[in-house]
Amino acid sequence: MASITTNASIASFGGRFLKLTHQSSVTGGPMNFTLFLPAGISESEPAPLLIYLSGLTCTPDNVTEKGFLHAHAAPLKLALLYPDTSPRGTNHPGEHDSWDFGSAASFYIDATQEPWAQNYKMETYITKELPELVFSQFKQLDPQRVSIAGHSMGGHGALTLFLKNPGKYKSVSAFSPVSNPSACPWGEKAFTGYLGADKEEWKKHDATELVKHWKGYLNALLDVGTADNFYKQRQLLPENFAEATKAAGIEGLQLRYQDGYDHSYFFISTFGEDHIKHHAKHLGLL
Amino acid sequence: MASITTNASIASFGGRFLKLTHQSSVTGGPMNFTLFLPAGISESEPAPLLIYLSGLTCTPDNVTEKGFLHAHAAPLKLALLYPDTSPRGTNHPGEHDSWDFGSAASFYIDATQEPWAQNYKMETYITKELPELVFSQFKQLDPQRVSIAGHSMGGHGALTLFLKNPGKYKSVSAFSPVSNPSACPWGEKAFTGYLGADKEEWKKHDATELVKHWKGYLNALLDVGTADNFYKQRQLLPENFAEATKAAGIEGLQLRYQDGYDHSYFFISTFGEDHIKHHAKHLGLL
Repeated sequence: MASITTNASIASFGGRFLKLTHQSSVTGGPMNFTLFLPAGISESEPAPLLIYLSGLTCTPDNVTEKGFLHAHAAPLKLALLYPDTSPRGTNHPGEHDSWDFGSAASFYIDATQEPWAQNYKMETYITKELPELVFSQFKQLDPQRVSIAGHSMGGHGALTLFLKNPGKYKSVSAFSPVSNPSACPWGEKAFTGYLGADKEEWKKHDATELVKHWKGYLNALLDVGTADNFYKQRQLLPENFAEATKAAGIEGLQLRYQDGYDHSYFFISTFGEDHIKHHAKHLGLL
Repeated sequence: MASITTNASIASFGGRFLKLTHQSSVTGGPMNFTLFLPAGISESEPAPLLIYLSGLTCTPDNVTEKGFLHAHAAPLKLALLYPDTSPRGTNHPGEHDSWDFGSAASFYIDATQEPWAQNYKMETYITKELPELVFSQFKQLDPQRVSIAGHSMGGHGALTLFLKNPGKYKSVSAFSPVSNPSACPWGEKAFTGYLGADKEEWKKHDATELVKHWKGYLNALLDVGTADNFYKQRQLLPENFAEATKAAGIEGLQLRYQDGYDHSYFFISTFGEDHIKHHAKHLGLL
């Protein structure tokens, strides 16, 4: 496995977490990711893959340690891929100054503004380079059965990448997703920095805008906690996404408000089983 | 609740984690602990309590975030108490210099050597002060049904406090326990520092010595990973505990070696369901 370095291999729930690093030609530097391989899979019986995109400030370690998605994925023989949240190897001016812009805050788009356009190409990285690498190196995974999920900024990533690529992912789910970034402070800051001031460009990367053009059923499960301070501060705006979906006459969206839950991994882990089962159903495991 | 400060209340798995602080008269300073209260318990239908003792370097936050025990305790209506691993408010010479002695390394004994004897009274704290406080303030918990568990140094704590106090705890379990501290480097360092050089004194706090005097069935479940470096380095010595138990003709011990598992929370969370069910059975929940 020439192009991937294995930093750790950890047994858990019968399978293994592999903590890995590779040199990305898309982001121009080393990228960490975690792969969970359940027991009992093989090249002749390959597992489908769920890509999970983390939120602001996270590395792949947070969900690996606190998400407990693998507890539910393991018995279903569903593999999990936890990418990083941004390129890491550069030092653009201001890159590491804010927790909601630059490092660990890529928003999973391909930046068009300098200096970010040089390497903040996370949309290409997540949709092409990383899965191609993983499927080429791990033949026990099935490139034909892939779904996508995420949390907060990663929920935005999951929704937009799903909507931009019909058929690429069998299903989508999100915890506390940033659902209408053009209309919230986090998204305005990120899109201005990465994409520039033209708000027409922003629409191409906003789930609430993208969903208006969706054709067919929407295999989407969203959970939002009612005690989530970012929800209360109108950073998430799932109601805008739901309204746009409804106005477009699109069926299938499950948006659930969970009473008393916050924005944390305690929320993710609580409803992780539902999300894993949602994807498992669409990936042919249930 | 005059004597307890609530730092956080977090919804998870239908119940709540309370992150709490109180002033301990036993340890002479502020002590943090976490309490998990499952949904559906009340003063008229109180929940039994599992006390879980963490290992070296930990605070109550580690198991709260990474242990995943509450996922299994919640549906059974079993409450969880996560104490801290040492007093925190003092600055004895050398107290914070080692990761295996002093702060976060109390070994859950009452020290007899100065300066530790002043406040390193974790045995009294765990067996008396903390549960008395918790049961006085949380009437939805049942002081008649308590069990104890732990990890590594906390596994030593769980085993020894169980064996020293017949009938106080309904069952005991441990992940990767320090099982014969008189015969391992961690234990030798801690016991010398806290108890002095007299090895006869050490026997009063060593599970492998204490179990020789146990009367009756031993409601004990122990799990040890075969890829655990501390096991390989002979810090844990569960085989000595098992041998002493067998030599004494004591029945009931379940000691399991888990192939390929390490010393981490990935190991704890994998087998947490078994441990929760072990205690639930002895606490009348299953």
